[in-house]
Amino acid sequence: MTDLNDPQVRQLLEQPNYAVVSTHNPDQSIHSTVVWVDAEDGNVTVNSAVGRKWPTNLERDPRITVVVYPGDNPYDYVEIRGQATGTVEGADGHIDQLAKKYLGQDEYPFRQPGEQRIKFVIAPERIRHQKQG
Amino acid sequence: MTDLNDPQVRQLLEQPNYAVVSTHNPDQSIHSTVVWVDAEDGNVTVNSAVGRKWPTNLERDPRITVVVYPGDNPYDYVEIRGQATGTVEGADGHIDQLAKKYLGQDEYPFRQPGEQRIKFVIAPERIRHQKQG
Repeated sequence: MTDLNDPQVRQLLEQPNYAVVSTHNPDQSIHSTVVWVDAEDGNVTVNSAVGRKWPTNLERDPRITVVVYPGDNPYDYVEIRGQATGTVEGADGHIDQLAKKYLGQDEYPFRQPGEQRIKFVIAPERIRHQKQG
Repeated sequence: MTDLNDPQVRQLLEQPNYAVVSTHNPDQSIHSTVVWVDAEDGNVTVNSAVGRKWPTNLERDPRITVVVYPGDNPYDYVEIRGQATGTVEGADGHIDQLAKKYLGQDEYPFRQPGEQRIKFVIAPERIRHQKQG
């Protein structure tokens, strides 16, 4: 499965579930962090601020792995691997959309002075949906 | 911080929270999966069956990254990086301990015929505890 057409997978991404995103550090160890996530036109989207660790990792090596599961059912999860493309254009609107989804607020409330947001669009190359129990 | 002496970190691991463990595939893409986890003598422990994808990855490359957060508070999470050492000795008792922790059952109920369990002990090399909100 290499797209998000499966309604169960799309629902995992569209509900306000959290994602663990993993990228390659310069020494090839794995950096993992917990982030907001969404789906858009068959791609996975995440958002960060320019200069932070994992967006910097993605500039060097765009390979990313994303795991999403509902907080109340970790046995139903999806693992998505793909390449991330970062863009600052539209990144501010995107983080506001995520704030609406996760916090119910129209505007992202945690902006830092001078912060430049970056949106990553991940084209899925491999999708694994695990269901147990 | 490179040990589990921080009571907040130890509690994250000792409570029945789930872990996302990430390992290196042969092509260096990242494999992530959701598993049970525990702490033991300052190390992180996880369990799988011999021959599955991620234990096989660890035989080739022992580097692993583990993320743990409570299902009801993803903003309080720990990321642990280290090297995993696998052993089949004691692995059956260990999966029973995990079944007790996560399912309240004395014996792991999902054993497959012919399955050989493997326990991984992860010596932490880097621990990052993120607290927000």
